[in-house]
Amino acid sequence: MRLVSERRAEGRQPRVVIVGAGFGGLTVAKNLAKTPVEVTLIDRENHHLFQPLLYQVATAGLSPADIAWPIRRLVRRQKNTRVLFGEVTGVDRARKRVILGDREIGYDILVLATGAAHGYFGNDGWAAHAPGLKGIDDATEIRRRLLLAFERAEIERDPEKRRRLLTIVIVGGGPTGVEMAGAVAELARMALAADFRAIDPGKTHVVLVEAGPRLLAGFPEHLSRYAADALARLGVDVRLARAVTDCDAAGVTLGDETVLAATVIWAAGVKASPAADWLRLEADRAGRVPVGPNLKPPGAEDIFVIGDTALARDAAGAALPGIAPVAKQQGAYVANAIKARAAGKAAPPPFRYRDRGQLATVGRKAAVIVYKRLRIKGRLAWWIWGVAHIYFLISLRNRLLVTTQWLWSYVTFERGARLITGTRAPPESDQTDTRTKTAPSPDGQEAA
Amino acid sequence: MRLVSERRAEGRQPRVVIVGAGFGGLTVAKNLAKTPVEVTLIDRENHHLFQPLLYQVATAGLSPADIAWPIRRLVRRQKNTRVLFGEVTGVDRARKRVILGDREIGYDILVLATGAAHGYFGNDGWAAHAPGLKGIDDATEIRRRLLLAFERAEIERDPEKRRRLLTIVIVGGGPTGVEMAGAVAELARMALAADFRAIDPGKTHVVLVEAGPRLLAGFPEHLSRYAADALARLGVDVRLARAVTDCDAAGVTLGDETVLAATVIWAAGVKASPAADWLRLEADRAGRVPVGPNLKPPGAEDIFVIGDTALARDAAGAALPGIAPVAKQQGAYVANAIKARAAGKAAPPPFRYRDRGQLATVGRKAAVIVYKRLRIKGRLAWWIWGVAHIYFLISLRNRLLVTTQWLWSYVTFERGARLITGTRAPPESDQTDTRTKTAPSPDGQEAA
Repeated sequence: MRLVSERRAEGRQPRVVIVGAGFGGLTVAKNLAKTPVEVTLIDRENHHLFQPLLYQVATAGLSPADIAWPIRRLVRRQKNTRVLFGEVTGVDRARKRVILGDREIGYDILVLATGAAHGYFGNDGWAAHAPGLKGIDDATEIRRRLLLAFERAEIERDPEKRRRLLTIVIVGGGPTGVEMAGAVAELARMALAADFRAIDPGKTHVVLVEAGPRLLAGFPEHLSRYAADALARLGVDVRLARAVTDCDAAGVTLGDETVLAATVIWAAGVKASPAADWLRLEADRAGRVPVGPNLKPPGAEDIFVIGDTALARDAAGAALPGIAPVAKQQGAYVANAIKARAAGKAAPPPFRYRDRGQLATVGRKAAVIVYKRLRIKGRLAWWIWGVAHIYFLISLRNRLLVTTQWLWSYVTFERGARLITGTRAPPESDQTDTRTKTAPSPDGQEAA
Repeated sequence: MRLVSERRAEGRQPRVVIVGAGFGGLTVAKNLAKTPVEVTLIDRENHHLFQPLLYQVATAGLSPADIAWPIRRLVRRQKNTRVLFGEVTGVDRARKRVILGDREIGYDILVLATGAAHGYFGNDGWAAHAPGLKGIDDATEIRRRLLLAFERAEIERDPEKRRRLLTIVIVGGGPTGVEMAGAVAELARMALAADFRAIDPGKTHVVLVEAGPRLLAGFPEHLSRYAADALARLGVDVRLARAVTDCDAAGVTLGDETVLAATVIWAAGVKASPAADWLRLEADRAGRVPVGPNLKPPGAEDIFVIGDTALARDAAGAALPGIAPVAKQQGAYVANAIKARAAGKAAPPPFRYRDRGQLATVGRKAAVIVYKRLRIKGRLAWWIWGVAHIYFLISLRNRLLVTTQWLWSYVTFERGARLITGTRAPPESDQTDTRTKTAPSPDGQEAA
């Protein structure tokens, strides 16, 4: 608390630096709009992303801008908040600075909400063959691979090679994997079905691989069974209790079986960002920073870690899941803690997650919902899922755009964003790597 | 006519190969839906693009999928038409084959509608510093550069460097250049104005450079003056009769003056695709293939060349402009010629372009229209421009999406697609260069 009071004594407001403008970090920033603190919100993308619908960008149902907003726009009216577009490379805890390459930003309170990336259980070589789905560029890359596989199959005469091109493997039976598998199957069977001459996209082999004994492990068992049945009805080949043992350009290996597949999508492991390394703290196996009930790592009074970056536990000792409601509630909690601190009041009571339920959609008119004691599946769950997702989108513009495209897809069975882009290399430019080349500037010394 | 009748005698339909699915090529294909010919439509993109609105993607107003459609979808119901996604590398006129790398497609009638790329008047080194606007990837690249320049300026403390980052040069005062300049000025002055803390995007220096004595050379003089005035009101620095003599990473040189600019956009020269080389014909300076009134190059009975690839002349001997209505009308003409030929009827009378007028928008509530004897400018022209462009979009979905976004921008002055994407290199993959690696297959020998 020393630094905060010091700065207040000098008549300057405490500096809050938030790294990451996902659900967690953005909530902190928004909730500090009227607090007498200087907020710096740093992200390596210029946009906040509504990740729950990212799989629909990857499967050509929505455009990236339908589910993404410039971070600057979201906090434009908060005069106490500035946005920095840049990549954090470390934290100097002794000097209380966030490091972005050769630039430094001083903080009094640091909030790390840097999210997670894909984890390949130590097999980083798999990444090239099995991209995961975290950002817009991931989604357009997966979309490119999916659509390209059908284009290549159309001109392929060798039946073996064609079969490989029309095999798509999704690794991981959690909500993302289930939603991807359903969306890919529908893309092939409905949207693309009539568009090819030499191949029948309806015969696409969509394989969903899950190492555990059932899909959607976080849901009650009968909903897992429902999801597996619904996927099977869409023609998805669900393989339970099969772990991926290898992955290369040819496809994936599941123990003694090899599935030849041109397209493999990774929805299995998640690995937190390197925040633990920055703080020189021990992380759990998924790279998460263990935090106490005040969402601070042990011994770090001026640092909060939230969202997918944090390993937080509920009262019963179970780890909180890496989902949007957890990150948002933690963000609101941290904002309250900062407000209290800025006002010289006592810290709020320990964080408690209020269960907001879980949803997952399997495909057209099929979804599962768990909310408190409620369990809903099928058509009703699907409509609730849709309305809830529209509701959580920011701004009328995006609600209208997504609703329009969903209604259109509902009626026509088509997907409107079937673009293969990014095939041409961008022209060389002195701007290409700007984000890591930020010039040193007097601003970088502001904390001195 | 020999080959056509030969094939008919064999009971096989004449094979029409169309290269390019832009306005010209797509019109040919659509109009042949019910003609007894085998149509192959080849494009190196998987989508047809509504190029007139591409500048709105580059300036963050629309998403790529709002103005692009999968080519397959547009001809899915035409059972006589197949779509090939691939890059044509040559034409073997003697053997009547189109060459795509190591693959060949035999034709009886060939339609080249391959469009144009940017031309740098022999200074191809300028391309890296001054990207032009032809495809979706160009548009997202320009969007990335524009938005990144503001982000860099925000963290730049050196006033000189900051000024360079906030200087945007558009080269070329035709419709594309005028529309880009207006859209960039509005992006900076309206959409971005309140979003930054260290810089004032409203002070962005937008320079429009035109080598000729006036903007919009194809329009009557008083409309050119109106456009220049309207741009000046938006704060655009219009430089007439100034040619670019050099272009590098620092900016552009206009004779004895250097304009330091981080972002340069090329809207000046256009160079037709290498179709003339494929045909071993002499092209004009812009790379276009001279065609006769039947839209065939001299001496080539089985080849049509249309759209931006062709140098066609009107009755008075003036070259037809490279605009959508010309390409569409030529496409319809070629389809009629092919129908007549397939039916054994006489070829249609020479092609005559029916003037469909010209439109260009300068910015909010400012546009110019020439239609026959009508000259309209200002607010009315702008509304007509908007309605006309919505009308020409394909499918209800895209009309709703574009209308929604335009209305939203009209009311809020904002731009909804402000995404910096493509900064991370795509993961390595065996699919990366698929389009040029098409495997040889029996299909490639189909004409043998």
